[in-house]
This record gives sequence, C-alpha cells and structure tokens, in this order.
Amino acid sequence: MASAVTPPRGMRDILPAEKATRERVLARIRSVYRAHGFDEIETPVVEDAERLFSGLGGDNEKLAYAVMKRGLTVDDLAAARTPLDLADLGLRFDLTVPLARFYASNRAQLPSVFRAIQIAPVWRAERPQKGRYRQFVQCDIDIIGEPGIIAEVELITATAAALDALGIPGCSIRINDRRILTSMLTVLGFTADSHAAVLISLDKLDKIGTVGVIAELTERGMPTAALAALQGVPAFAAFGTEAATHTAPAAAEALTVDSIAAVLPVGVDAQALTDLAAIAAAVAGAVPLVFDPFLVRGMGYYTGPIFEVAHPQLGYSLGGGGRYDGMIGRFLGADVPATGFSLGFERLIDLVEFDASDDLSASALLYDADADLGAVMELKAQLVAGGARVRLLARPKNMKAALERLAAEGFARFAVVGAETGADAAALDWRRLEPAS
Amino acid sequence: MASAVTPPRGMRDILPAEKATRERVLARIRSVYRAHGFDEIETPVVEDAERLFSGLGGDNEKLAYAVMKRGLTVDDLAAARTPLDLADLGLRFDLTVPLARFYASNRAQLPSVFRAIQIAPVWRAERPQKGRYRQFVQCDIDIIGEPGIIAEVELITATAAALDALGIPGCSIRINDRRILTSMLTVLGFTADSHAAVLISLDKLDKIGTVGVIAELTERGMPTAALAALQGVPAFAAFGTEAATHTAPAAAEALTVDSIAAVLPVGVDAQALTDLAAIAAAVAGAVPLVFDPFLVRGMGYYTGPIFEVAHPQLGYSLGGGGRYDGMIGRFLGADVPATGFSLGFERLIDLVEFDASDDLSASALLYDADADLGAVMELKAQLVAGGARVRLLARPKNMKAALERLAAEGFARFAVVGAETGADAAALDWRRLEPAS
Repeated sequence: MASAVTPPRGMRDILPAEKATRERVLARIRSVYRAHGFDEIETPVVEDAERLFSGLGGDNEKLAYAVMKRGLTVDDLAAARTPLDLADLGLRFDLTVPLARFYASNRAQLPSVFRAIQIAPVWRAERPQKGRYRQFVQCDIDIIGEPGIIAEVELITATAAALDALGIPGCSIRINDRRILTSMLTVLGFTADSHAAVLISLDKLDKIGTVGVIAELTERGMPTAALAALQGVPAFAAFGTEAATHTAPAAAEALTVDSIAAVLPVGVDAQALTDLAAIAAAVAGAVPLVFDPFLVRGMGYYTGPIFEVAHPQLGYSLGGGGRYDGMIGRFLGADVPATGFSLGFERLIDLVEFDASDDLSASALLYDADADLGAVMELKAQLVAGGARVRLLARPKNMKAALERLAAEGFARFAVVGAETGADAAALDWRRLEPAS
Repeated sequence: MASAVTPPRGMRDILPAEKATRERVLARIRSVYRAHGFDEIETPVVEDAERLFSGLGGDNEKLAYAVMKRGLTVDDLAAARTPLDLADLGLRFDLTVPLARFYASNRAQLPSVFRAIQIAPVWRAERPQKGRYRQFVQCDIDIIGEPGIIAEVELITATAAALDALGIPGCSIRINDRRILTSMLTVLGFTADSHAAVLISLDKLDKIGTVGVIAELTERGMPTAALAALQGVPAFAAFGTEAATHTAPAAAEALTVDSIAAVLPVGVDAQALTDLAAIAAAVAGAVPLVFDPFLVRGMGYYTGPIFEVAHPQLGYSLGGGGRYDGMIGRFLGADVPATGFSLGFERLIDLVEFDASDDLSASALLYDADADLGAVMELKAQLVAGGARVRLLARPKNMKAALERLAAEGFARFAVVGAETGADAAALDWRRLEPAS
C-alpha cells in the first residue's frame, strides 16, 4: 500500500514548513528582480510538441515529457511510426524556449527592451538521484532587445543582489564569451565542424583535467598540431595550478583587455575581449567576476558572453546563462538580441536559513469539548483581525505532546477556551510555547 | 508565421501587468488562509496515471491530459490496446485527488487535524471558449481529520475572509447536505440505484426549471409516484418564486432545524438538519448562508455538507466544496474525515481591481548614449538600495511616446542621465510621469 501513494518517480511533495520557506524565498527573489526593473510573466507549462521538440533545447529535449493527443483510437496507435506522432504537447524542459515563443507572440504589447522574470517549474525525466528532481523550479531573468553589454551588466548585478538578499555570501561569477571560444578554436587549428565536439570535451576540464581532455580529443582524431597549440595556450597550460585565473578568483578590476588576452592565444575575437572588460568595469564591486576561458555552458544556442554562479563551498554552479542572439529569430523570422541568467532555485533553497518561528503572533486556541463553537469562532475572528495567525485545536488528552508539536510548527503562544471563557479575546490567558532546544 | 507562436490551444500567456496583479492577489489569499491557521503544501503537477484515472475524478478524468511513457518503441505503440497503455502519468485535473494522495503519503509528519492550502494550476482539456482556459489556478483549503462541523465553519469563515480581503463584497454561501439529498430521494420513493441520475437532473434546476426537471426524469422512466412526491416538496414547488429560500437569501440566523425542515419532506436525515443549523449559528455574521435544498455539486465523492459561493452579479459560482469523508480512505485503507473549499482564481481575478500605479517609487533612468555605464549602474544601485524599482532606458528619439509608455507601465518619475551627470542619485533631476487620463 505504501508504494501506491508516493509521488511520481523522481518527484516529491513539499510539506508545510518547507513550502513556507520556499514561498518566502521566492517572494524575496521576485521583489529584488522587480526592483531592478524586470517584469514577471507566465506561460503555460506545456508548449506545442512541434516547437518543443524542434532542436533548440539540445539534450534537454530528450528528457522532455510528451503529452498525448486526446481522443486517440487504437487505429491511431497502430498507425504511429514514432511516439511523437501521438503527442501534441510537451512539458517545458526550460524557461528559455517558452520565453522565445512568448516574445514572438506578444512582442507588440511589450517594451522595446523587455526585461522578463520567470519563476516557474520545469520538467526533465533525468535518472532520479539524491537532490535532483524531475520537477524543479527555475528563476530566470532575461533581457530581450538590447544588443549592448548593459544587458549583461544588469543581469549580473540583479542576480548578485538576489543572492545578497537571500543571505548567500561569497559567490562569484565565472564569465567567458562564446566568441572567445570559437575564435580560439579556429586560431588553434580546429576546423569549424569539429568545434561542437571540442567544446564538449573542454566542458569536462574541471572533472578530467588537461590530460583527460587531450586524451579524449586525441581519441576523437583531432589534428595533432591543434592539440599541441591548445596545450600551449597559457590558460590551458596553467589549469589546475595556483596561477590559473579561474581557480584563483581575481577582483573585477583586474579583468582588463590586457589581462584577458594574456592567457589566450593571439588572434581571438577582439570585440569579445573589449565587451568582457567593459562588463567587468561596470559590474565592479557588485560581485567578483572571474574570467574562465574554458567555461562552455552546454546549450548550443549561446552566441556571446556566458556566465555561471560559483559558490565557494559547492562543487556545482547555482545558476548560469548567457547571450543567445539567434534564438528568438527562429520563432519571429527577424533577429532579436537576447541574454538571460537563470538561478537554480532547488540549489539555492538548501543554502537559505530562515527562522521558522519568526511569526510571534502565531497563536493556538485549545478548545474544550463543551466550549461554545460560536464563542470559539468569535475569538478566532478577533485575533485574526488583530493580525494574528490562529490555529484551533480540540484540547487533547496528551497536552505535552500537542504543545511541543505546536511549538515545532512555529506557534508562539496558546490559550485554553472552556465553556466559561466567553468571547473576548483580550481576556484570554496566554501561555508561551517554547521550541524544544 | 503568427499562428506558429501562439500558446497551446485553449491556454494563454500572462503579461506583466496581469501577472503582477495575480501575484498580489495570490499573496493576499495565501496570507488570509495562513492567518486562519491553514498550512500551504505543494504536490507535483503530475500524478501516476493509475491513480489519476481511477474513477475518483468523475467527468474531469475524461478531460485529463495523459503524459506518455519515455523510451517507447514502435512495437510498444503497435501492442497498445488503449492510449492509457502508453501513459504512466497525467496532469492533475483538480487539487483534491493529489491532496488525498499527499495525505496518505505524508500523514505521519502532519498534525492530526491537518488544514491544507493548495494554490496551484490544474489542467482540463475542455472545449475552448471565451473566459475558460485549459490551464487555470485553483485556491483550495481542506481540513483532514476533523469529523465535526467546526471544519465546515472554519472553511466557510476563512473563504469569506479571503473574499473580503480581495474587496469582493456581496457574496453569499449556498449550502446543502448530501445526506439531505439522499434521504429526501429515498423518502420520495426513488430507488437507491437511480439517485445519481436524479441528482444530475436536479443539478440543472437553475437552468431548466421544475418543468424541465420533471420532463427529464419522466423521460428517464422514474416512478410516477416519486415524481408526484417531488413536486409536492415545498422547496421544489416554490422554486423560482419569491418564496423560494434559495432565490431570496435569508440571514444566517434564519437557518434553523425548523426553518430547514419546513421546506423538505418529512423524514429527511435529522443529523444533517442539526449540522446545517449548527454551521449557520457558528458562521453567523461572517457571511450570509443560504440553504439551497437542490444544490448538488457534481462530484460523486461528497458525503455531507456541500457549499458554493454565489455572487449577486454573476450567473456562476466563484467556488465551492464539501465534505468527502470516504475518499482518503481509498488511498489509505482507513477512513479519514475530510472537507474542502475551492475558489476559482480565474473567476476571482476578474472581479479584483488593483491600482497599477500604486508603486510611487517606480523610477525610470533615461541614459544618453555617451553616459558612463559605471555611473548609470551606480545610480541604479543607490536608488534600489533606497527602496525604488528602477528601469533603465536608452534615451529614445521619441521622448513623448516613451514617457507615455513608462507611465502606462506604472512608473511614477524619470530622470535623464548624461555624460556629465555623475553618480550621486540624490542629485538627479526628477520629473513626474502622469498616466494618460
């Protein structure tokens, strides 16, 4: 019987104490992003299958849940050549594809530079593992219609402010630019059609190190000369040593065109260097920026600056994003610049500590069996009107256990209502509830 | 191209102004329900198909979206005898089935009387029509584990308080009891196996009147004697006339065992009459209660008091609910009393008027092309730190249109930032933005 009432595989229920914390954290994030000039929107949780499974989502598409057409007949099932023939919708696997569709659909009603907030769940059928869920909340901000780096600067400062507001100190932002990666690979002698494969290997640098990357690229038959050139890139050669920029966070002021160029091969995209230095100068002070020439970010749609949030105690990032100038054009038929930053809410929430008992007006009324129901309700109404949160409870046999439970649930005081108590809340005899230490 | 970027059929995007209003309304409802002692929870949007399509959801099950198993092969498709053979999950069509499953799964960690808040979307593939959407938000409160009418009293007073807090005056609660309906039909001479069909007809009384109901029941072959007896029920005979209780809202105080029994045949369930009168007495003053002996509520799982929110200007209810004591037992294997009240958020939101420009600190900074980006960001940071919401905007050629747009979006003031402005927010030259009248 027990297994029959668990949530669907890889998903979970959220109980009262955690839900209250989640809502408070979400409200705080929402409030910071609104203060920074962003506007919240919402899209349906499903998108048309032909759009969702169109190749924009990379590997995430393969993890998507498809929703079946309604009214299918047995003949329809037999005639289907692939499962997707039977699906017309799918649960979104990120908030970027829906945003691009939203913008294309509603552009006429939006400001010319549109700053979007999306705080919403997404679904991916990943292999279940500890701490990873198949339904999880993302907090995305995106700026659509702004080609200049002021967009990246606003995204990074707003994200840093959100982390600050949640009391998560010590974060830094790793930053790179897809144009640097692409031009670097070209300069090193990798052919354009091999770039995607090389980036997949470089993306593993943190895990398998320089030796592992070179071994993997050798196995894939990459040109020896290009591999030798890669090993000569100062940042690659220094990877994992104390001298490596991205293992020794530098202050934002240290990120200049010269300091970036110094660790790269000659000939990388000059505009990208200029942009990164300008972003660093404008962000200065809001959050430490760390140039990481081997930050790749998985999605193929990135076209410019890319970034990730690093936390000193965590082996994974708290969020990331980047510029994806070509994507909205695929829906709209006209190019529109866009860049976004996504925070992984499920990772953040583990780092946030809220005091569960911050609600000093949380009051329990324990009513006797012979108490007048009308009087109990009148007392409750008076207390609520006075700003309290009020929980009614039939007076239990085991008072001690009940009071401990109420304290654990964040209730700060209780009063007993008997047959003679009357209906004046001011006359109640309150006792404090102390959380068990 | 345009049709390719619309939301899925029957669903919609929510734009910034509406989203901001929705979030404020949801926060207010959440806050009222928490004050009344309820705790918010959350379940995944999907449930296992075998549970969702188990017959508890009545007609709503037929409208559910099924989610396909992952990794299906062509052979799987050919071997399937029904579409549901290919589905392992479904989008929830209400919040009651998931709550029952949640309670069965997490009971050990919940208070013995559990007051749940669920504010979340549900999905039904209904025929699209104006004002009805296939994804819509419900606001449910439920009390599990309390057999007494104090549960109904708390649900009704909390719901009334939520409507008050939203500034939706004039609502009343129509109330009835499934035990009254069932015992009345038995007394009138309808056999037990015909009750469901008779209730379906009675549920249409508002639309087709007494003549229509009798015609429909005659056509279904109901006993002539029972139909004659039904026409002799005082409340039925008086339906649609000024004397009918449920078209002339009575004050709660008027609802007594005697006043209720007076409009019913002799021999209806006495406990139900006592319970309704006790609910009316305890709710007194919080909201007008109107006894409606032909209120049915569609779902088959109701077992006791049932209720709906009536609004004087609307032809449909804003929400409803009732007691469903048997349902959780189906998941748990042990009977647990339960009752709930659901508000239809999409219907409420149309009745709520919020002032979009209540945010007097919303400020726009219009920056010149030669303004220093670092100074712009520093000004923004100072203003945000001071509590403002700040929108950056490249100074446009058409100032008039841009300022009108900012005012329409709720921004209250603007300042221009040029190359010489400096980075002291206190020195900015603010101008007011007035909404177009």
